[in-house]
Amino acid sequence: MRKFASGRVRNILIRCIQQQQIRPTSSSSSVFSSSRSRFQSSSAASAVDFPPSLPPMALQNINPKVLKCEYAVRGEMVTLAQRLQEELKANPGSHPFDEILYCNIGNPQSLGQQPITFFREVLALCDHPAILDKSQTQGLFSADAIERAWQILDQIPGRATGAYSHSQGIKALRDTIAAGIEARDGYAAHPNDIFLTDGASPAIHMMMQLLISSEKDGILCPIPQYPLYSASIALHGGTLVPYFLDEASGWGLETSELKKQLEDAKSKGINVRALVVINPGNPTGQVLAEDNQRQIVDFCKQEGLVLLADEVYQENVYIPDKEFHSFKKVSRSMGYGEQDISLVSFQSVSKGYYGECGKRGGYMEVTGISPEIREQVYKMAAINLCSNISGQILASLVMSPPKVGDESYEMYLAEKDGILSSLARRAKALEEALNSLEGVTCNRAEGAMYLFPCITLPQKAIKAAEAATTAPDAFYCLRLLNATGILVVPGSRFGQVLGTWHFRCTILPQEHKIPAIVTRLTDFHKSFMDEFRD
Amino acid sequence: MRKFASGRVRNILIRCIQQQQIRPTSSSSSVFSSSRSRFQSSSAASAVDFPPSLPPMALQNINPKVLKCEYAVRGEMVTLAQRLQEELKANPGSHPFDEILYCNIGNPQSLGQQPITFFREVLALCDHPAILDKSQTQGLFSADAIERAWQILDQIPGRATGAYSHSQGIKALRDTIAAGIEARDGYAAHPNDIFLTDGASPAIHMMMQLLISSEKDGILCPIPQYPLYSASIALHGGTLVPYFLDEASGWGLETSELKKQLEDAKSKGINVRALVVINPGNPTGQVLAEDNQRQIVDFCKQEGLVLLADEVYQENVYIPDKEFHSFKKVSRSMGYGEQDISLVSFQSVSKGYYGECGKRGGYMEVTGISPEIREQVYKMAAINLCSNISGQILASLVMSPPKVGDESYEMYLAEKDGILSSLARRAKALEEALNSLEGVTCNRAEGAMYLFPCITLPQKAIKAAEAATTAPDAFYCLRLLNATGILVVPGSRFGQVLGTWHFRCTILPQEHKIPAIVTRLTDFHKSFMDEFRD
Repeated sequence: MRKFASGRVRNILIRCIQQQQIRPTSSSSSVFSSSRSRFQSSSAASAVDFPPSLPPMALQNINPKVLKCEYAVRGEMVTLAQRLQEELKANPGSHPFDEILYCNIGNPQSLGQQPITFFREVLALCDHPAILDKSQTQGLFSADAIERAWQILDQIPGRATGAYSHSQGIKALRDTIAAGIEARDGYAAHPNDIFLTDGASPAIHMMMQLLISSEKDGILCPIPQYPLYSASIALHGGTLVPYFLDEASGWGLETSELKKQLEDAKSKGINVRALVVINPGNPTGQVLAEDNQRQIVDFCKQEGLVLLADEVYQENVYIPDKEFHSFKKVSRSMGYGEQDISLVSFQSVSKGYYGECGKRGGYMEVTGISPEIREQVYKMAAINLCSNISGQILASLVMSPPKVGDESYEMYLAEKDGILSSLARRAKALEEALNSLEGVTCNRAEGAMYLFPCITLPQKAIKAAEAATTAPDAFYCLRLLNATGILVVPGSRFGQVLGTWHFRCTILPQEHKIPAIVTRLTDFHKSFMDEFRD
Repeated sequence: MRKFASGRVRNILIRCIQQQQIRPTSSSSSVFSSSRSRFQSSSAASAVDFPPSLPPMALQNINPKVLKCEYAVRGEMVTLAQRLQEELKANPGSHPFDEILYCNIGNPQSLGQQPITFFREVLALCDHPAILDKSQTQGLFSADAIERAWQILDQIPGRATGAYSHSQGIKALRDTIAAGIEARDGYAAHPNDIFLTDGASPAIHMMMQLLISSEKDGILCPIPQYPLYSASIALHGGTLVPYFLDEASGWGLETSELKKQLEDAKSKGINVRALVVINPGNPTGQVLAEDNQRQIVDFCKQEGLVLLADEVYQENVYIPDKEFHSFKKVSRSMGYGEQDISLVSFQSVSKGYYGECGKRGGYMEVTGISPEIREQVYKMAAINLCSNISGQILASLVMSPPKVGDESYEMYLAEKDGILSSLARRAKALEEALNSLEGVTCNRAEGAMYLFPCITLPQKAIKAAEAATTAPDAFYCLRLLNATGILVVPGSRFGQVLGTWHFRCTILPQEHKIPAIVTRLTDFHKSFMDEFRD
């Protein structure tokens, strides 16, 4: 196919040149003549195609898909929070709180979580290799970080961390990641299936762009869902086919619900292409049981769906009776291989115990696709040249951290366990506090970084929200922000069963701040209920 | 608008729930019944919408826009080059050359260009701030790099270089970049107009996504063009409206040609939205004269086009009689302000004398748009959270390098001048060598990183290419690669006037290798012409 590429480009240009030579006549197609006449007239009717009155970019002439898509994790409430923060800085005591607590987004280091020392040592050394053989470096960096940096640099052609890499990512780093996946799952992983990306988001966009041709292409997404999915599906002009997680059973994922929604979508002429599963769940925090995962794999196999497995929280599991299993491991353990199921697993350096959101590192492992499709995925990756090399290096580090015996191992383990055990304690404390509030029920955060409590709002509050032309849960969250400085995200941003109201709150504020947050939250909720109780 | 977001999501979900509750009857719309019957039948005719026989992802059921787009800077010839390289490694002497010279892509550090020391020092210190106050650090890093790292870290909330930033990029870094633009242009620049991105490519995609609703939206692009534009326009389903650069006048850009192509596109019902100008030119290497830029600005103003100014090579100008002027400076110098012209300028850390391709840093400065459109651009940026922080820091550094008196200044200046003066010598040497070849004419590389010679190929060679179902220039380049290990890109990948043939060759191989390249190229060309001379 590629062989003909140059020929195609040539033909396109032949057409272009011919077009510019042909003087269009009024006998040309109605589209031509009508559009030309529209252009020549300056009537209001002409404004749609050729609007002399409109600026070059106006809401009326930009891509309606962009207008349509919503991404409310960073919406007007964040802007308000930033304004409040500036007001506090300029005029301390101007609000009934002394700081804004950003519980709206899974951004651990913005709330004081420290990076893993070993990872940052290696990144710094790869950024400035000139210091690697200086004597002072021995005193500043651990021996195994220096060794790892040498290893990585020796695997990069010309040791050039400032060069574009292979569009899938540096081969040797993909080897390391594949080995890490094998060690995690106990099944083979191949570097050619790995595509390194600037965080998981671009990988998810890439798959949506590949799968969606029109609004007749549907993607099964959980409700509640992480808004990146609804935004990406809207941007690419597809249809989000919702399946509802069962809050009563701890956000359970029933294949009967998947089947029902799939059939319903089909009956409407929607060609459902893929199933998105977020495990551990965002915003819902559940960790799927292995037999549930087997049912999901079988469902995708039977229905011919691509399984898009968002596994970015794979390191964030907080309870002893649950464990993360990758969908790749589960499908292989069922005896399914490359021929049986198309599976894409997304991983990111932004989550886990590392929480390196700002580094924009991540990868997708794409299995069960044909060489022709692989070539298309590669082409999409190639158009953006490559992902950032620091992010690539970090992605390889999180999949192959220090091992027993390495100089950094003890420190690495202490840092990792410290973060994860503290997150577990914070999750528990916030969960208990929320469940103690009038009309609030909250499933436990088995994993991920969020709690998603259900709040029963009084009719009076719902009416007040309607009067303010906002959703009742958004109304509640806005009041919470203004009263306490705590920023959370209304459940309506993620989707929820009609007539139920939630908010998403991260478990990320520093542990010593949790008691104060609980107090603020409890006091606010009480006064809110007192104000609006029917 | 945002105020209603939650309400909209709620309504969407109401519909979802209603849909799942309604059992579709045969009395439902024809779309429903027809699609249901299509689903129930398994005839060949049904294969289009519901293909049980096709795998979940097949060339027949993925997004045709992805299939359509081409990106040939990294195509099958690169794959061949990599194979040859492996063969040379495994079996030295297996080919008539000892290494592959990657002259296909503007990737300076992959060919041995060293990074600017100061930039890397600051990046390393920001990656691992823990060493900033260690005594050994003084001996390893320059004082001003340490000071700059402190400055940057103090401007990042919590000094968290591992946190997601504001979706436009860290405010203080945007302040620095705006100040750098002001110093460059002598006109005001505003941090709120700056959007930091992972290199320039995502910024260009963002603008294409915003401007293109359908194939009736056209984007004026130079021919020859950098294939990112044709690829991005194809991916977003728009129409590339070509305007041809005049090779005879050193790749001149005539507004008469712009006007002609614009009118021709309009006559075909194409609503031309924007004009792409690459200055300095890629692949053509010309630097626009200021009065030519004024004509272009007036053309965009008169025609109501968004001016998309690809200015990533702004530091790469090699001849004394030409100078880079940003389109922002030119338009402001004409007295045009925010109300007069919509202008987007793209900048990248991948080019210039820094050549930090692997860091994926860049920004776009968006001026002359309404607050509503600005909000849409912000939303698109927010969906991907933020660009990588190292790239953001580097973008601020290239726009505010060391100044006279700083400890690093002398070294910085020596490194910068060394790179730029060497690039100028390499460009000249290759240009002269190419012009000395039979049937080859090559405009001078006034700027950027490329030469784009025109090769007059014998009919016999053209016939041989047709027999091999490849474009004649691709045929020539393939022969060149196999004979010399020199990888260049056929002109047909960039577009060229029908019946003319070119290739793009970077000026980036290390200077001491240029004589050998010239010899290899000269010998190859002679033997090629001898073989195919009519």
